[in-house]
Amino acid sequence: MEELMRNQAFQTYAVCSAILAVKMLLTGNYTSLQRMRTKGFVNEEDAKSFGGKADPTEHPAVAHALRIQRNDLENIPLFFAIGLIYVLNGASASAAWWYCWTFTIARLAHWVAYMNHLQPWRAICYFIGYLSILGMAVHIVF
Amino acid sequence: MEELMRNQAFQTYAVCSAILAVKMLLTGNYTSLQRMRTKGFVNEEDAKSFGGKADPTEHPAVAHALRIQRNDLENIPLFFAIGLIYVLNGASASAAWWYCWTFTIARLAHWVAYMNHLQPWRAICYFIGYLSILGMAVHIVF
Amino acid sequence: MEELMRNQAFQTYAVCSAILAVKMLLTGNYTSLQRMRTKGFVNEEDAKSFGGKADPTEHPAVAHALRIQRNDLENIPLFFAIGLIYVLNGASASAAWWYCWTFTIARLAHWVAYMNHLQPWRAICYFIGYLSILGMAVHIVF
Repeated sequence: MEELMRNQAFQTYAVCSAILAVKMLLTGNYTSLQRMRTKGFVNEEDAKSFGGKADPTEHPAVAHALRIQRNDLENIPLFFAIGLIYVLNGASASAAWWYCWTFTIARLAHWVAYMNHLQPWRAICYFIGYLSILGMAVHIVF
Repeated sequence: MEELMRNQAFQTYAVCSAILAVKMLLTGNYTSLQRMRTKGFVNEEDAKSFGGKADPTEHPAVAHALRIQRNDLENIPLFFAIGLIYVLNGASASAAWWYCWTFTIARLAHWVAYMNHLQPWRAICYFIGYLSILGMAVHIVF
Repeated sequence: MEELMRNQAFQTYAVCSAILAVKMLLTGNYTSLQRMRTKGFVNEEDAKSFGGKADPTEHPAVAHALRIQRNDLENIPLFFAIGLIYVLNGASASAAWWYCWTFTIARLAHWVAYMNHLQPWRAICYFIGYLSILGMAVHIVF
């Protein structure tokens, strides 16, 4: 563990993962915010607690926010797993730096693009993140 | 690896992760149970196999169960990643013990609260889990 | 880290995780493909960029593809976490080999079965993956 704490590649992975985790928590808060703003409650108990009427159909703004979260769920846990295996398998500090920061910045930009309905920027950011994971996965297998 | 097997912080993380993983499997079973009970099938092939008629709209009880799972998906994989990095970065046994058990018990209580439609308990449990992840993420970055 | 790079159990876990990560990326592509094929856009900005009209209700083929992804999200991140802890806790090379490949092949077969609407094969594949995770989680706790 002393070795990991001095390992540059692992430390880059660690900081990027922490940033991405906080980003995911905030993305969840963004959904809650949309729900509160539109009083778009689907659970009866929430409507009762926070005021408003429960509606089984998600409000469009909430559904949009949930899609941002779903896209995160489909991509960021892959980074957590594949990034870790990649650095534990002895990735160089510079290669890890490029992969981790490229992925992290692409996902932050994806969030901004998605919240602001910006295409094709959202698709481009998604694709950059996709390639980062694919690149590391290919390194692991070969 | 010998070192990890003797490391108290890692072992706490390991046991809590195993409990949370089993909890997620059981939360999935709870959804299946609701689906079977209400015959709420959305896939044609499931309706054919298990009896009943497929309906593209989820039954309210199934939709509620799926929201429990979604909330887990948004939080527990963050613990898997951030908790691991936190203990690999040399967290003390006692700090790891508090963070890991607080998170684990909060998520188990969240499940109970969500299944029983209990607000604001569900929101409080969610928030305690949220703070546990945030706390570890902040430790990692600084 | 030298030790991990020579550890057979960890290397099996690493290769299986990489395969599963690529599988999840491709499962995402399958959803995009269904969306493009059916012009089933839910975001206004996507309909504008790719042609077609946005509809807040997912097209049945897209909803089906999203359910494949959701099932992955409920299972594969559990493998990433529990499989790693299991091998870091000193699993034997042969036990790790059986657990990891059983899970990986079950999830690949689950994907094929789900895409082709094959029951009860899909349920059987799901259950084999479920037991693999449960088995490793039980090993970790005891």
